[in-house]
Amino acid sequence: MKSNIGINKNRLIKSIEEMAQIGATAKGGVNRQALTDLDKVSRDLFIKWCKNENLKITIDKMGNIFARRQGKNNNLPPILSGSHLDTQPTGGKYDGALGVLSALEVIRSLNDIKYITEAPLEIVVWTNEEGCRFPPAMTGSAVFSGQYNLNDALLIEDLDGKTLGEELSRIKYNGKTNCRPRKIGAFIETHIEQGPILEIADKSIGVVVGSQAQKWYEVNIVGMEAHAGPTPMNKRKDALVGASNIVLLVNSIGNKFQPGGCSTCGVLNIKSPSRNVIPGECFLTIDFRHPSDQRLKEMDKNLRLEIKKIANNYNLKISIKQILELKSKSFNKKVRKTIEKVSSNLELPHQEIISGAGHDAVNINDIAPTGMIFIPCVDGISHNETEKALKKDISAGAQVLLHSMIELADNTK
Amino acid sequence: MKSNIGINKNRLIKSIEEMAQIGATAKGGVNRQALTDLDKVSRDLFIKWCKNENLKITIDKMGNIFARRQGKNNNLPPILSGSHLDTQPTGGKYDGALGVLSALEVIRSLNDIKYITEAPLEIVVWTNEEGCRFPPAMTGSAVFSGQYNLNDALLIEDLDGKTLGEELSRIKYNGKTNCRPRKIGAFIETHIEQGPILEIADKSIGVVVGSQAQKWYEVNIVGMEAHAGPTPMNKRKDALVGASNIVLLVNSIGNKFQPGGCSTCGVLNIKSPSRNVIPGECFLTIDFRHPSDQRLKEMDKNLRLEIKKIANNYNLKISIKQILELKSKSFNKKVRKTIEKVSSNLELPHQEIISGAGHDAVNINDIAPTGMIFIPCVDGISHNETEKALKKDISAGAQVLLHSMIELADNTK
Repeated sequence: MKSNIGINKNRLIKSIEEMAQIGATAKGGVNRQALTDLDKVSRDLFIKWCKNENLKITIDKMGNIFARRQGKNNNLPPILSGSHLDTQPTGGKYDGALGVLSALEVIRSLNDIKYITEAPLEIVVWTNEEGCRFPPAMTGSAVFSGQYNLNDALLIEDLDGKTLGEELSRIKYNGKTNCRPRKIGAFIETHIEQGPILEIADKSIGVVVGSQAQKWYEVNIVGMEAHAGPTPMNKRKDALVGASNIVLLVNSIGNKFQPGGCSTCGVLNIKSPSRNVIPGECFLTIDFRHPSDQRLKEMDKNLRLEIKKIANNYNLKISIKQILELKSKSFNKKVRKTIEKVSSNLELPHQEIISGAGHDAVNINDIAPTGMIFIPCVDGISHNETEKALKKDISAGAQVLLHSMIELADNTK
Repeated sequence: MKSNIGINKNRLIKSIEEMAQIGATAKGGVNRQALTDLDKVSRDLFIKWCKNENLKITIDKMGNIFARRQGKNNNLPPILSGSHLDTQPTGGKYDGALGVLSALEVIRSLNDIKYITEAPLEIVVWTNEEGCRFPPAMTGSAVFSGQYNLNDALLIEDLDGKTLGEELSRIKYNGKTNCRPRKIGAFIETHIEQGPILEIADKSIGVVVGSQAQKWYEVNIVGMEAHAGPTPMNKRKDALVGASNIVLLVNSIGNKFQPGGCSTCGVLNIKSPSRNVIPGECFLTIDFRHPSDQRLKEMDKNLRLEIKKIANNYNLKISIKQILELKSKSFNKKVRKTIEKVSSNLELPHQEIISGAGHDAVNINDIAPTGMIFIPCVDGISHNETEKALKKDISAGAQVLLHSMIELADNTK
């Protein structure tokens, strides 16, 4: 390890704060959903910063941005690092932006001392990681890694019926480069943990070993609209009563499949809601996760069985559609070892951890040696405007990233 | 009873169908919410029809429309009939429009034969009966009868933050006449039952004896937004799980307070919903009804007690606010007797019935002798695009209204 090289903590924090102004919310968070005007502003700022560092920008057909710094041997596959700039509607300053700007800080630090790595380096910004506006999540990296069809991705609609492709063109990030796998030396994504484990264990660095299995569903519940006053209780087909039973069912399944199970209904819409109308139709989303593929399968079975009973009990038509499936994954051993070794050398308290959230790194893991560096976030809270990471942990994460990238770039064959 | 006088069934049906074109939905219903452009179109059509019958139009500060036909003695207080032209988002053709157009058909029929009643007659269209856009419901008649302050009503906001007063001005129905009680001989509102009782009993006419007691509530549930993946089940404060428990609680209270109890959650909103975010904040509406004021009070007590338990069990902050209270009411005996006598004379099968829904007539009952004529609707369904009334019943209702109005207008003192 080059012990005389380090990142500039204050510069990194300043960039994170400046980026967080774009879509800043009253409660101190960020609302910068994919392919909105604000997403464009954040991309433009990122590119401006990259150009200041003499990086070469490439944008692909999914709007993924690559900013390249040449190495000594440019025939070697590049070492990539990055994350995403889009956020949840009530997102925080660190989810995504931390990974992009930590990679930028690595490049800036190397430029400061004119250190040229053997292999070239690239910063990457993946399009539509959150998936809240254009579900499913992580589409930019999914298309890049060949797991999702480009044309299908461009046709994903938001709730207003606008497509991802239309919005990409509108903000002028519909690049020319093909979005498909190419030779990559390694990919490392730095990210806040988004859970409480590292904080509780008092560790600055999580060496991520893999990710949970995950399933997303959409549920439609159809009953019969009727006047809330004169319709006797025993004549009703109340879609919201059905939906509420499913929310509680989903919650109980997560609790049943401990340790490790997570289950959430994040969206519940009533069609044409009105205070004195019995809801006739509801739409509901379900997010299921478990570290074990087998246990997730059992959660799925449980859900389908119990939903049938709810439909029967309440005289409702309920349809359920699975819209996303991710198997549990293990990250590349060499990349994991590198992150661990660097953390030890830097004397940073670290531990192995499994990722509860999905990440672009999970997709890229299929086509390139991949790893992730987690840092703690306060109270384990994220996807929330109060999301916060401590300066010492932000600095530790970027420091580990810097030395891991040098190690990988100088030892690629 | 003047046995040689009758209404023109086909003309009435034709007017109902023509009115139903304004805001017609694909499923055969009507979406014509209060003070929208479509509400204006329906009001303009109504006024055009009234002018064809030489009626004098007055519009008050709440946008209530009065169309007057002079009598022989215009010092006598007028006999009023009417209802409303606004609908639910998934409303039907008959709820409201039936009452307005039946009153218009009465006037047309009297004009056909140049029959002049002793007292003058007026058709009335009350503003914002449904309350779905501007809650609470029945504000036009509530202000007219002195139960709701005019300025408060004009400041009611829709979900986009537009006020009732602004929208009234925008569609140019902010009249000059004061909106306050005046001397009225009687008010009769014709309406579909909106429940299954008359249809099951095979009666064409319901002589409404009174209305249920009613309470509306707004509930706010506050937990903590967090990422759906890495947040362990036992660290969550899921506002939607709280809201779903309240929906099922509300449903169980209605079932418990039989016979007569009705309970509905019509609106449930998640603040900033996203598929992979644990909902941090929910808004919920509750509609409680019971024929007995005392039993409704018990329902209220039950609700408040159990909501506290839900807040404790799920670590949530829950606040509940009552936004509407209607006591059970009894309609005027003379008006009820008149409707019943006329139904008997016309040999129409009829019975007494209590109104499950709130109606403008319930407000007007406080300041004038008031009654209602119900006709059945198919399968008891209303507030639904498939809402339907049979031609024979529509005709029966208007026929009873005609003779009741003549009877009351010719015998006013």
